[in-house]
This record gives sequence, structure tokens and C-alpha cells, in this order.
Amino acid sequence: MTTVFGNPGSTELRFLRSWPSDFRYVTALHEGSAVAMADAYAQLSRNAAFVNLHSAGGLGNAMGSVFTAYKNQTPLVITAGQQTRALMPNAPFLYARDAVVMPQPYVKWSCEPARAEDVPAAIEHAYHVAMQRPFGPTFVSIPEDDWDRETVETPLRRVIADVVASPEGIETILAALAASARPAIVVGPGVDRDDASAATVALAERLGAAVYVSPLSSRCSFPERHPNFAGFLAPVRTHVVERLREHDLVLVLGAPVFTYHVFTDGPPIAEGTVVVQVTDDPDAVASAAAGTSIVATLRATLDAVLARMPPEPRAGSGVARAAPRPLVDTLSGALALRALAHVLPADAIVVEEAPSHRNALHEYVPIERAGTFYAAASGSLGWALPAAVGAALARPSRRIVAILGDGSSMYAITALWTAARFALPITFVILDNASYAAMNQFGRFLGFEGMPSFDLAGLDFVRAAEAFGVRGVRIELAGDLEEAFRACFASPLPTLVDVAVDDAAATIY
Amino acid sequence: MTTVFGNPGSTELRFLRSWPSDFRYVTALHEGSAVAMADAYAQLSRNAAFVNLHSAGGLGNAMGSVFTAYKNQTPLVITAGQQTRALMPNAPFLYARDAVVMPQPYVKWSCEPARAEDVPAAIEHAYHVAMQRPFGPTFVSIPEDDWDRETVETPLRRVIADVVASPEGIETILAALAASARPAIVVGPGVDRDDASAATVALAERLGAAVYVSPLSSRCSFPERHPNFAGFLAPVRTHVVERLREHDLVLVLGAPVFTYHVFTDGPPIAEGTVVVQVTDDPDAVASAAAGTSIVATLRATLDAVLARMPPEPRAGSGVARAAPRPLVDTLSGALALRALAHVLPADAIVVEEAPSHRNALHEYVPIERAGTFYAAASGSLGWALPAAVGAALARPSRRIVAILGDGSSMYAITALWTAARFALPITFVILDNASYAAMNQFGRFLGFEGMPSFDLAGLDFVRAAEAFGVRGVRIELAGDLEEAFRACFASPLPTLVDVAVDDAAATIY
Amino acid sequence: MTTVFGNPGSTELRFLRSWPSDFRYVTALHEGSAVAMADAYAQLSRNAAFVNLHSAGGLGNAMGSVFTAYKNQTPLVITAGQQTRALMPNAPFLYARDAVVMPQPYVKWSCEPARAEDVPAAIEHAYHVAMQRPFGPTFVSIPEDDWDRETVETPLRRVIADVVASPEGIETILAALAASARPAIVVGPGVDRDDASAATVALAERLGAAVYVSPLSSRCSFPERHPNFAGFLAPVRTHVVERLREHDLVLVLGAPVFTYHVFTDGPPIAEGTVVVQVTDDPDAVASAAAGTSIVATLRATLDAVLARMPPEPRAGSGVARAAPRPLVDTLSGALALRALAHVLPADAIVVEEAPSHRNALHEYVPIERAGTFYAAASGSLGWALPAAVGAALARPSRRIVAILGDGSSMYAITALWTAARFALPITFVILDNASYAAMNQFGRFLGFEGMPSFDLAGLDFVRAAEAFGVRGVRIELAGDLEEAFRACFASPLPTLVDVAVDDAAATIY
Amino acid sequence: MTTVFGNPGSTELRFLRSWPSDFRYVTALHEGSAVAMADAYAQLSRNAAFVNLHSAGGLGNAMGSVFTAYKNQTPLVITAGQQTRALMPNAPFLYARDAVVMPQPYVKWSCEPARAEDVPAAIEHAYHVAMQRPFGPTFVSIPEDDWDRETVETPLRRVIADVVASPEGIETILAALAASARPAIVVGPGVDRDDASAATVALAERLGAAVYVSPLSSRCSFPERHPNFAGFLAPVRTHVVERLREHDLVLVLGAPVFTYHVFTDGPPIAEGTVVVQVTDDPDAVASAAAGTSIVATLRATLDAVLARMPPEPRAGSGVARAAPRPLVDTLSGALALRALAHVLPADAIVVEEAPSHRNALHEYVPIERAGTFYAAASGSLGWALPAAVGAALARPSRRIVAILGDGSSMYAITALWTAARFALPITFVILDNASYAAMNQFGRFLGFEGMPSFDLAGLDFVRAAEAFGVRGVRIELAGDLEEAFRACFASPLPTLVDVAVDDAAATIY
Repeated sequence: MTTVFGNPGSTELRFLRSWPSDFRYVTALHEGSAVAMADAYAQLSRNAAFVNLHSAGGLGNAMGSVFTAYKNQTPLVITAGQQTRALMPNAPFLYARDAVVMPQPYVKWSCEPARAEDVPAAIEHAYHVAMQRPFGPTFVSIPEDDWDRETVETPLRRVIADVVASPEGIETILAALAASARPAIVVGPGVDRDDASAATVALAERLGAAVYVSPLSSRCSFPERHPNFAGFLAPVRTHVVERLREHDLVLVLGAPVFTYHVFTDGPPIAEGTVVVQVTDDPDAVASAAAGTSIVATLRATLDAVLARMPPEPRAGSGVARAAPRPLVDTLSGALALRALAHVLPADAIVVEEAPSHRNALHEYVPIERAGTFYAAASGSLGWALPAAVGAALARPSRRIVAILGDGSSMYAITALWTAARFALPITFVILDNASYAAMNQFGRFLGFEGMPSFDLAGLDFVRAAEAFGVRGVRIELAGDLEEAFRACFASPLPTLVDVAVDDAAATIY
Repeated sequence: MTTVFGNPGSTELRFLRSWPSDFRYVTALHEGSAVAMADAYAQLSRNAAFVNLHSAGGLGNAMGSVFTAYKNQTPLVITAGQQTRALMPNAPFLYARDAVVMPQPYVKWSCEPARAEDVPAAIEHAYHVAMQRPFGPTFVSIPEDDWDRETVETPLRRVIADVVASPEGIETILAALAASARPAIVVGPGVDRDDASAATVALAERLGAAVYVSPLSSRCSFPERHPNFAGFLAPVRTHVVERLREHDLVLVLGAPVFTYHVFTDGPPIAEGTVVVQVTDDPDAVASAAAGTSIVATLRATLDAVLARMPPEPRAGSGVARAAPRPLVDTLSGALALRALAHVLPADAIVVEEAPSHRNALHEYVPIERAGTFYAAASGSLGWALPAAVGAALARPSRRIVAILGDGSSMYAITALWTAARFALPITFVILDNASYAAMNQFGRFLGFEGMPSFDLAGLDFVRAAEAFGVRGVRIELAGDLEEAFRACFASPLPTLVDVAVDDAAATIY
Repeated sequence: MTTVFGNPGSTELRFLRSWPSDFRYVTALHEGSAVAMADAYAQLSRNAAFVNLHSAGGLGNAMGSVFTAYKNQTPLVITAGQQTRALMPNAPFLYARDAVVMPQPYVKWSCEPARAEDVPAAIEHAYHVAMQRPFGPTFVSIPEDDWDRETVETPLRRVIADVVASPEGIETILAALAASARPAIVVGPGVDRDDASAATVALAERLGAAVYVSPLSSRCSFPERHPNFAGFLAPVRTHVVERLREHDLVLVLGAPVFTYHVFTDGPPIAEGTVVVQVTDDPDAVASAAAGTSIVATLRATLDAVLARMPPEPRAGSGVARAAPRPLVDTLSGALALRALAHVLPADAIVVEEAPSHRNALHEYVPIERAGTFYAAASGSLGWALPAAVGAALARPSRRIVAILGDGSSMYAITALWTAARFALPITFVILDNASYAAMNQFGRFLGFEGMPSFDLAGLDFVRAAEAFGVRGVRIELAGDLEEAFRACFASPLPTLVDVAVDDAAATIY
Repeated sequence: MTTVFGNPGSTELRFLRSWPSDFRYVTALHEGSAVAMADAYAQLSRNAAFVNLHSAGGLGNAMGSVFTAYKNQTPLVITAGQQTRALMPNAPFLYARDAVVMPQPYVKWSCEPARAEDVPAAIEHAYHVAMQRPFGPTFVSIPEDDWDRETVETPLRRVIADVVASPEGIETILAALAASARPAIVVGPGVDRDDASAATVALAERLGAAVYVSPLSSRCSFPERHPNFAGFLAPVRTHVVERLREHDLVLVLGAPVFTYHVFTDGPPIAEGTVVVQVTDDPDAVASAAAGTSIVATLRATLDAVLARMPPEPRAGSGVARAAPRPLVDTLSGALALRALAHVLPADAIVVEEAPSHRNALHEYVPIERAGTFYAAASGSLGWALPAAVGAALARPSRRIVAILGDGSSMYAITALWTAARFALPITFVILDNASYAAMNQFGRFLGFEGMPSFDLAGLDFVRAAEAFGVRGVRIELAGDLEEAFRACFASPLPTLVDVAVDDAAATIY
């Protein structure tokens, strides 16, 4: 962990003193951005990232992103300066009272060491907790005078946290697969997080299973043009039941059973359909709506299952996925995304936060590789723009494309500055409908009227980009889209493309 | 509470449905801004303000501002949508697990009602807790389906929370004053918060007392050109001891004893100096470093004390306050502030967040009226810019001037959009040294070297302003300052003035 | 605070080393008893009491009593040993992880000092928080090695926390009184806690007001044979409404508005009846069901009200209180209590925990003096038996009578040992119906059937008493009661009287 | 879960109504006992046990035992009644404010369902969380009116939570074993908890490894007369280092690395000794003092390791364990335990809580079978006496022997009543030194003087037993011991044996 993401203040000065030349301090202009950058960096580097915040105020500003990191199951070691120990009895300026309580319940472990000498051990402890399943953020509050105290070296330790399901678990999976005539697999973010996409493809092919993406999955866990790919489940109970009705077995991998956004009544699965869940997330097991659950690391468990299965594939699932709907010429989000898909480099990494265009994205921008799609599992806004910056720092040789709503991008617009400062080759695409369009869509979906206006008129994204040193361009004609995107992908620097879209007819589910 | 500050999402749609025409929804582009706007609005309107956030993500984004509101002792009723009750067992999208825990320990009360029918009672409860001494934020988590449930009317209740010190307390104060030959008064934010400035002036004049401002006070509690005004205490123990050494009595009103930022050793007050504190903040009493503390509402208690004192004033304190130091011509923060002071309307309201210019502000912009100066008591950044918006909404007939650092303003720059949308006559002054200059100053103060760069090169504030619909102007010559400010004060619309300052020599304390 | 109540373990040994000869360590055999003893001791001595517990296990055992102390609003400084700081990173034996969290939410303040040097300041802080209104317990976790560290002396501080209602509050009360033709006063535990009984009697007499006891009040706040005394309110909404219906004003002093145990629907007060509450408990204000609430210290405020009222009393309330019902000869709890009342010394202090005899107690044992009746406000069992011990230690010259159920006494029966060890003149009266009779009564009240047995057959209280060195006697004939009680009151030592009662017909409300 | 342990109150009446005839309600006279009974019951039945407590007061009384259950890693579903939902806004009698917070941080999950309909799902959720690794208690707060609401059936779910270490983990263990010339195994409670004793014996025999018991292990994880058994480690760093110094590999199974009670400085293990830990407890991994840690279920992982090892055993460890020291004739704890060992049935289950005799117990009462020794992992007192009751209920055909200190037994003496009521064949052995002898021993160990007295003179255990319907006998002559114990083991009923011991010379470590 030699890259530190942060936004420092006076209580962190001692930590920053005599900064090692082989460490990198990535300054964000807002703490929420620092955590989101670190989140994507950790996801892409498959290792916990280190964050340095400024006491209660800094941690407070970051809490939305901490919540997202918790839902993303991203390993983070978040530190915040605390006031000098000797001052605490008088409740000094910048004092974080009950510092360990503040990030609850959205960190896995929280600590203010009882002695300066124990700060290294606390950071190591935080690291090991963050890296245990399910991954997640941890927090260490560090009194600023602690950095002046000599301490003994902490012995280097190693932790092996991957596990395989027990023999009973493996047998249960094999028996369910063997008994199924029409199996489906539902993949969630845990598959990609656990580097288990290839194993899942192998399993799907051997089974001839249809593969669905779990509702609102935050990562791409199955190639979306693969013949067995069967599409995306909506976070609505009745929708899930209908889509999965034809299957006698649903194997849920690395996902809850199931994530809902809108309430509809009824059973969670059609009668007669067997559900088996495999996940490393005990909460997802305890809150599952149905079925048998197996707690284990996904990839190791799939490997063990595959080793026990007959090698020859069964016939395919026969699920014919609908072709993308044709589009009219109006410059809509869908049209913009289709244009983007035409010119998107094959190994580009997509970071998404455009709630009112999520359906269109899935329809027109099929993701085909593991590790190339990231969204916030929390539904909290302000994550993707800085996450794109963190992704670019983790993968300097890759193109990063952030697909953002106009509203979404505003929660963390200052992260553009960090992109400019590190000269990162990111394309920020704003699907700009000049409103919180998801609110309008959702209101229509629910039949609501008389709400306050959700329009966002008056935002100028080109100037916003320029304010932070990023080149900005506004596109108002569909015909200009591909060339604009191509120019971005050819540039070694960050670019923002503000696409004026009309999405009056878009629907949320 | 008919003005609602917020940033909504799907879980708040039912609340917003059929929005009453006599209610005003003030949309902020970031939740931290919504809370900061509400904070200033509440301070200036002397009533709790209502905030509407979006589940755990929205509350998370706002937590830095919640922390500041807590330190500011500002009464707020903060609500956040929660998922539909029926979905909770399956941990749905946007679900805030343990919602009441998240804002701890920085709200006074936190509740998710056990039944939909109890939401109105919970909001009323939150209001009454927020409005009890010490004021502060409260939180109510509201499952979104609750808005569909009929409920009975909650009877209107009235709470009288102001209190006078007990007879023993009054006698203690009177005895201390009578016994003192060289009294000092230290005023904190509680004086202005409690509308007790006039009473404090009367008391100081009768006593002939020197009046100091408590370290880092977030409000103006004494006219800074009054003959008894003796200046500002720095948040450093040895500094406080030295400044107050000549007094045999220090009466601390509405402030801690004392707020420190930098640790220095030694006793909190010179031997022989008696300290008496009057405050409505029990925490400030429990953590006081010395003296006798009296818990009571300030204004009512000062009135009671004044009624018992001889009416004729004693001779003045004789504390000669240093004249502001002369300035060289370099365009520094100090020079800019002096220019501002020349043209500042007498009833303008100043909102401050320029950490590296706080000393200069106090030196060159004396505040003379109660209720015209506001800063964040927390030291947390990102408050003042949106707070200026809230102040302008609360006081539509007044000029609001936000004095901001370049770094500070970036934590909440999108609040400019709300200023533009409501066409508020705010002047945003950016004292732009192109760095986190307070960090450099503090590092010099502590003798540190080798820190990562704290420069903020590459920010273009004029374009940033324009991105949000606010007129922006950049000033690089000292001679242009006054005219630029005058133009702002003549405009009915918000303006941002980016002043390029050189503050290499500025000191933090 | 030179009397320490506790139950120590290894982590407290350093604290106990070289114990000062003028300090008293009162050992309880269970931590719940230690806290309950300290609770009563603090109530009777009107000062915070000090408790010393053994790490998380000891605090855990005590939490029921901590909850009761919180509801009793009793000032306590509870300390617990914590493991050596240097061991904490390895989660040692007896380590209290997140020690400050454990007693939440039932302490007012909780702290583990950041340095050994700050332990004295933390204890003083805890003391000042405990002694602010509303009183309550506080907690300090003390790493055991801290006692080996030298520290500087903490300056002695003084806090004056009593307050008078503001002029607006006083006027509001006076106006309500003046406008009322048929006023009632409802007194709660806050009256006696604040030593305001005499002032309340004076007020009632001047007003000619009927005085009711608030539901389940834990202290005697009005002499129960006073002509204005009108009886006890049951914790049932409809009952309260009916009893108070004839009054046009209800002045609630030191009590919630109102405490309910059983749910019944409807408004909290009859239409047209004005409610004014005066209390020092902000929670009781925020959760009041109706009326105007004034937050202030009771006695100081009543004094201020009385000083403004006409001195001559108004005509009496005319509320005729029902005479106690005649009793049949069966040895019931009522009969035993009537016998007790006959011989009870006038200045005896009664501590009560006999849920199924509470009504009979009020009917047959009228309490006439302030400071002579104590019960647990929490409804939690196991408090009264050790509380009687604490009361006896606080008032060595007084007779203490504990009126206990057979079930209740068993939660803390070992506290008899401490009574024996300190040779305290306490009479423990067990109203022994050989069952959790309140459960049966409540079940009948609600019309329930088919519950598991609540009988407690097989307990021998005489042997239990003897096991702990206390003389025990069993009474099975009504005629033996008075002589048995007289013998107790003549003895300088503790005695337990086990009264075999038949309460098949008793009712809960 | 058809056996319910509890101590009910009014808020649980609706739950108890129409109690099913095939359910058993085990009443304890104190809530701490109810939880401890359930704890042992769950440990012995290898399934979560159900506890029913009375609101905040009942949970509060139980918190010491909840803490112990947490440290014991025992799966429990603890429920407590909460007040009627409709009453909550007025803070009613018996209301548990923030009920989910109270048991923190010592439950794994805590919930008050948002709707009555969700109570069954919450209980199921709690069950599944309790039964995931590491096992532990969970809490559900249930508003009492919820039992009146109809709800839909929750589908039955199945969870498989056992896991095998990943291939990398297995290889790491095998490589370490292969490279070791002088291996040691340290066994903790996790071995017996996971039914992995036999596998551990097999592993030790194949390796020729010396087997030590981890400091303060709460269960017997290796037969103590087995040739490879090498004794008990003391919870002192230097002691552990010395005992393990001769080994080049220490394989720690189901235990922390390591549990310390007394602080001594220095490294946790001798240089050159490799430490590999296998445990299902992530906290024990994160807080380990040294080595490589592997998170996995123990038995499944040992099976996988054994399957990969050469079948023929290596030569034995050659660790010669010291014979028990000869004893003088004074009636000491050691002498009593030696006598007990002589007549103890081979399949008896020992429950221990005699802190000052723990060393003697290990020396003179070797435990030889898995699942026959239980102590509290927390060091919290008051567990073993009721735990013996729970053990007897779980294993009706076995003899249960509780070995208790006089002090220890007093924390939960009323649990004898439950033993009598269920006529359980338990032998309660009180090693009665008439003091908190462990405190005196510890004080001597640390060289402390001048402490308050820790004597417990005046307790009569025979009468205490009889008070609760249990036969009691006091033994004051060594020669009477064996016959007394034999009589107990021949009786179908509970018996208490109070052994007057002189342990002036006993040492703690």
C-alpha cells in the first residue's frame, strides 16, 4: 500500500512529514472522492487501498463513499487524524468524540489504539480484517502526536482467507446440478470480485445453463455476448419470479437472493424451482429470501465443483436474448451509448453512474470481459466520477470510460481536478438530460404527481470541466458522437463529453 | 418549517408527492450542502430547519455537515428515506441497515418509528429535542411506504426551554464580579446564538471589563470596535494564559474553557485568576479546564445578573487594542480583506471559511453587529459556501458575503447552482492562494519538512462560477478590488470574486 | 465519594492497592447488587456514588441495574477495569472490546481515557456529567496499568447546575394557575429527587389543588395523608383521562405526561383540560403526550412561582379519597402490609419491589415524609434488595424496610450477605405467594390462557437468609405479623420476614 | 429449538399464551442464568438455543452472560419483549429505547423488526447468523403486540457454513509440517467446538507432535493422558515463549495466538519458530501476534490435511509431562480435586468456574474425552453453575459435575432452583476457601499490599442449597471426600458439596 488517497488537514501533518519518495499521495478535493478513488483502485488492484482523512469532519464528508465501499465489499484501510491525546479531556478543536463510533455500522472494524506504540499493529489489524471475506472498509483513528513516538517493528504476517465449501456443500451443489433439467445461473458482483468469471463460463457451458445478471449487480460477472447469456434481472420480485419461472434450478453465485428496489408482493421464486446460493457474504445468506445457502469463496468452490463434473458440455440453454431495440434519431441516452459502443476499445474499463440510463447501457453496451465494469452497489451517488480516477491510477495502460448522469456527476465533480493533475486518459461521458431524470421516471412508474421540480437547468459541463483543467466538449447532434468519442480515446489526457440527451420516454424498470 | 432543504431520491418520492404550494423545496446538488444551507438558515431564523435526504447514501454524504451542525449547536430536523418496511428482511437496494446508528454520535436523537402512524410524532419529538439546550441536529429515518398510511393528528405542543441560573448561580456570579478589580469577559458563540450580545455589552460597560473572543468562536458575540473589545484569543493554552494573566477574574460566556487546537503544556490559567463560566452546554461544563461553571441559558441569566448590579458603569478596562498592521502592496489576503471592509455594507452578513486568512479577517474586517458573522465551529470544510446560500434564503433583504479559501470552496462548489437558481444576492470571495495554504502555514509553525505538495494549481474559479450560472470575476491587481466588490454589492444576483493572493508570509497563530 | 461499591477482579487490583484507611469498600457478591446499592446510596446522600466493576464481565452483570439507575436518574460514576494497554492489540483475556459502547444507551457519558494521565480528569468529567440534569450514570473504563502512572493534580472545579424557568416559563405557569378553577397537580419522582416536596405542598395548599401521584412514580413526592392528596394514577391512558377529567388544569411536576404500561387508545387528556409540565428531563418533555412543557429544575422554579403567588390559600380540592378497603382474614399481601403500617417507625425508609402488591402497598401503607420511599423506575427486578443495603449505609440512624416479592428478591438475594457483613438494621419483608404472581395477575387482566407455569414452589427464604448470615423468620398466621415486625424494628441487625400470602384475588390495575 | 430458556415479564405474556405442549420453558430465577443455561445447552447440543428475556431490564441482567456466550462463540437466539408499538412515542414503562444498541458489541446481529409480520423472518435471520462461523449470540427485540398479528409462513431454508481451507491453505499447512523436525500443536476451544478432537489426535500421532493446550482454553480439545499431551500454556507471553522454544513449528488449532492475561514484554515466539494458525475466527486471525493464519473450519480442514499426509506415524514427541505433585494432608482444593478424580464417572461432564483452582484442576483431574469439559472463555463469573443446569438438560443420561469457587457460585446461586425443579443429576462442588482467593493469589503474584479484604466469611452453602431445594453437605475432613462424591454420583438428584479448603499457598500462574 504505497499509494495513499486523501485530503489532509492539520491533524495529519505529522503523518505526512518526511514523506517517502516511493510513496504516492493522491490528493482529492473532497473526502468522498478520496474514498471512491481508493475503492476503485482497490477493486482493480485486488488489494486493500489506504485512505488518509482529516478527523471527524473529513470522515464525515466521506461517509457516503464509505457506505458505498461497504456495499461494494471493497477492502479499505481508512485512517483519520485525531487530536493530540493530551488535549482530549478538554474537547479540543478538531476532536473526534467517540471516533470509533462515527463510521458505524459501515466499517468492519474501527479502532483508536490505546497507545501510540500500537498504531502499526492497528493498521495491520485493519488490513487483515479488510481482506477477510466479505471484504470491506476498516477504520483507524490516529491521534496526531502518535507519529512522534518510536515503536517496535510489527512482525510481517500472512493470512490465507480463501476457502472451499465443505464436502457437504460441494455434494449439495453437484446433486442439485445433476437433478436439474433446465438450470439457470444468476451471477452477482461476487463472481467478478473473486476472479471467478472464467470458472462461471465453464460451468454454464457444461450445464447448458442460462445465465442472468443479479438485480443491480455492480460488476460484470459474465460476458454479455456469450451464447448462454440471458440478460439482466430487474430488482422487482414479480419480475424475478417471471424471468426464472421456466428453470427448475437457480444457482445464485456471488449475489443476494435477491436484491429488490421496488416492493411487490408474493413468493420470491416460482413453486418447484430450487434455489442454491453460493457466496462469501454471510449477510447475503442470512437475508436470502429462499433456498439453500452455501458460504464459501466462490472461485475455489467452483473449481472444486468443476473438477467433479463430467467434462463434456450439455446442450445450450436455448434462451434467446432479445436484440437491442432499434432507436429513433432523437439524441437519447440510448443513442449515445450505442455510438459509444461502436468505438469503445475492447479492453476499456467502464465505470457507471447514470441511473436513468442503466437499462440502455445494458442494452447497447454489452460488456464482454471480466474486470471491465464497475458501479456503486449502494445506489449512492458521487462514486463513479472519482472511481474512474482510481481505476485509471490502478490500470495506467487502460482506457477508462465513466458513464455519468448530469446529476450524478455533480456529487463529486471536483474529482476532475485529480484526473487532470495525474493526466489520466479518462473519458467522462455526461448523459445530460438537465434533470434528476431517474426521479421523474420513478415518479411516472409509481404514478405520482405534483412533486417539486427535479430539473437541473443551468449547469454548463464544458465550463465545469475547464474549471478543473479538463478538456470539455458538448455534443448536441447524434452524428457528432462517434467522432467525439474517438477523439477522447486518442488523447492521453482526460476529456469530458457532455451529451445533450432527450430521455422523456425512458423507463426505470 | 415550510422550507425544506434536500437532495431527494426514490425513497423520498412519496414524501414529495402532492407537494403543498406554500412549501418551498430547496434542492442542493450535494447532501452536505443541503445540511449546511439548513444550518445557516436555522441559525439566522432562530428556529430548527428541516432537511430531507436520501437513505444511507444521502445521509452519508451529509455527515461532514451534520458534524458541523452538531458543533455549531444548530437545531435541525434531518430526515432520510428508508426502504419499504416489507422489503427490509431481504436487505433491499437503498436499505439503511441500523439507520439510527449511522448519524451517531453527532445527532442528539435518532429514531426510526416503530409504526408508520408514528412518523408525525417522531418529527415533532425530533423538533423538540433539537430546540432544547444545547441546540443540535436530530434524525428521523422514514420508511418510504409510511407516507401512504393515514395517521391521527398530533396535538400541537409548546416547549419553553430557556432557563435562568439558580439563585446560587446568580449570587456566585455577582460575588465574583464584586470581588474583581480587573475583570475580563471571554465571549463565545453562545452569546450571539442566545441573542445576548446587547446584554453582554451592558455588562462589560458596567464592569469596565476587557472583552476577548474565545478561541475559534464561530459567531460574533461582541462589537469589535467597541472600546472594551480586547481582541481574539488563539487556541493555544500558553497564549490564553498570557493574554488573560493581568485579570483577576475571567467570566467566560457561551464558550468552552477553552478550545485548543495546538498542544502546549502547563496550567490553563494564571495562578490567582478566577474563572467563572456561564453556558447552556453541559459538555462544555464537564470538559472545562478550570473554574466554576454555571449551566444556564445565557441571555436570561445575564438579564438577571444585570438587574441586580449597580446601574452606573465602572471605569473602562484600559486594554488598548493594537491597530491593524500596515500592509505592503502585494495582493495578499489581508489587503483584499481590508479593501472589502472599506465597501462592506453596514448590515452585511459575513460567512467565513478561509482558514489561512482567519487572522487577517479579524484584523482588517471588524464585525460590529450581532448576527452578522458565521463560521463552522467544527473546523470541517465545505460549510460556508452553502451556508451563505442558507443565510440568503433566511434574510432575503440582506447582503451575504462568503469569505472562502480556494481549497475550502471546492468541498461544496456546486452550492453555487442553488444560489443562481434562487437569484440570491451573495458575494463569494475566494482568497485564492492556489494551495491548501493553512497546511503550509501549520507545517512552518511546527517546523515540518518533506511533506507532499499542498498546491492546488489548475483551478479556474471564474469558469467554475459560470458552470453553475454565477457571474465570476478574477482580480489580480490590488487596485481593482474595491470596485469589484462594489459591483457585487450593487447586483441583485450572486457573484464570485476570485482574488489571486500571495500569502507566503501568513502565519496560522 | 469515599465509599466505593464494587465487586473486583484482577484488572482492579492496582486500583485497590494501598487502599486509603478513610475509604470504605463495600463488596457485593454480584455486580448488579453493587450498582443498586450505589444507586440508593446516591439517591439518599444526594450525591453521585462511585462503583468499581470488573471489566466487560462485571459491567455486563451490572447492566440491568445500570438501566435502572438510568431510569431512576441517579448520578453514578461507574468504573471498570480494562486490560493493560500494551496487551490490547492481541485481544487478551478480560479485554473489553469497544468498552465505551457496552453500557450504551443507558449511561450519559462513557469514556476510556486516551492516556493514563487523563484518568483523574475522566473521573471528574464523569462526575460532572452525572450531576447535571437529568442526573444519571456515567462510565469510565480504566486500563489496569494506568494506576502505575504518575499524573498531575486536576484542579478542583465547581458546577452549579440548578436552574429556574425563564421569566416566560414562570409567567406561563402563573397564568395557567390563575385561569384554573379546578386545578390538579400530578407529582412524579422528580419532586422528591429535587427536594421539592415542601414547595409542592405549599403550592397545593395555596391552590386548593388535588394532588395525584404520576403512574408508577418511583419516589414519594407528596404526603399521602395530606388532605389534598387524591391518590395514584394507573399507567393506563383511559384511567388517567378519567381520573383527571374533572380538572381544567393539570400541572405535572417532575413526571412524564404520562407513563403508560398497558395500551389503550384515545386522547391523552380530556378535551378542555390544560396540561402544563415542569421537569428537568428533556426526554420527558420531548415524549410528552400533550400540553405545554417547561424545562427547569423543579424546586428553584416552584420557589420562584410561590414567591409570585398570593399568600392566602384557596379552598381545598374537595377530592375525597376512598378509605382503604376492609380486608378479610386470609393472610394476604394487603393484610401483611396493613400490619406493617401499624408498627412502622415514623421515619422508616421503605424500598419497594413487590409488583403484585404495589396497589396494596399504596392503599395500606401511606407514605408521609419526603425521602422515605424508593422503587425502581425501570420496572427491572433485582434492585430493591441491594438498594435497601445502600440506603442503610447512607442513613445509618434510620430503619430501612424492603418490601419484596418472592420472585423479585431472588434476582439479588446475595445482597443479604452485605447487609449482614455491615450489620445493617434492615427489615426484608418477603410477600411470598410462591409464584411470579404479577404474571398471573397480568395474564388474567389481559384474558390470556395456556401459559407455562409461573409458580416458584420450593424456595425456602428462611434458609436463604441464614445462608447469608441474616436471621430469617416465616410467618404463616396473620396474628403473628405485628409482633414479628416489631422484633425486627427492635433489632440492630438485618432480619428477613417471609410472609406466606395468598393473593389469588389481587389485581394489577 | 423447542426448549426455551427464560425469565419472563409482562411484555412476554403474549408470546407465552397458548404455549405448545411439545415446547419446554425452562425458567431461571435470574436472566444471567437463563442465558448461561442456554449457552451450555447449545454447546452440548451443537445447535443454537433460544432465550426469552424481559425487555431492557431482563437483557441488562443477562449482559454478563451474553458477553460470555460471545467469547464462548456459542450460537444463541436471544429475544426480549419490547413495549407495544403504539406506546413507544411516549417512552412507556418497560420501553427499551434503542433496543438494538443495548447488547452491542457482544452480539453478532441485533434487530427490532420494522413490522410485526417480519418477526418470524427476524428470528430465522438471527438463527442463521448465530450458526455461521464464528458462532455467537444474536438478538431480536419483539414488540409485545406483534404476537397478535397474523403472518405468512417463512419458507424453510438451509445453510451450509462449513468450509475447507483453500488449496493454497492446505499446501501451506502440509509444507510447514513437512519442513518441521520438532513440531508442536497448540489446541484451543475451537477444536472441541468443531468436533475435531479425533482428527487432532490422528494428526498429532502421525506427526509425533507435542500437544499443548492454549492459554485458558474453555474446552477440552485433546485427551490429557494421551502420550503426546504436553500440558497447559499459561496466559503469559514469556511463559509461552519458553514452553514452545524447543519446537521449530507451532501449529495453533482453534485458538488465538495467544491469549494473555498478564503483561510481559518481548517477542511472542522464539526466533526461528514458525507459527501457523488454523481457526474459523476472523478476529483471532486479525489479532494474532505472529505467524501465518488460515481462516477455515477446523475439522473439514484437518480431514483434508490428513488425507494428504503419509499414513504411517512419526516417532513421538518425547515431551515428558511432569507427574502431579504429591500433596500434603491439609484439605486443599488440590486434594479435593484428586479425590474427585478418583471417583469421577468416565463419561462425566465437567463444568468449571473455580479461578483459584484452575491449575490444580488441570493437574489432578485429567480430562480424557471430547465434549466433557466446559468453562467460560470470558473469565466472567456466574456462568458455570447455571451452565451445569443447561448441560444436564442437554445430556439427560450423563453425570454433570460443576467445580465452583465459593465466590463464583454466588453470582448465580439461584440456578440451583432450576436444577431442583428439573431433578437434574448434577454435583455442585464448592471449593470453599471463604474468600475471593484468586484476588489474593493475584495480589501476591504482583507483589501488592494494603488491599481491602477479599474474604467471604459468613456464607453457609449447605443452607443455600437447601433454600433452593437441593441437598447440601459440607466436608471438612479430607477422608470424607470420596464417599461424599460417590453418594452424589449415586443420586438421581442434584447435590451440593461444600468443601472447606485451605489454599493459602496456591498460586495463580
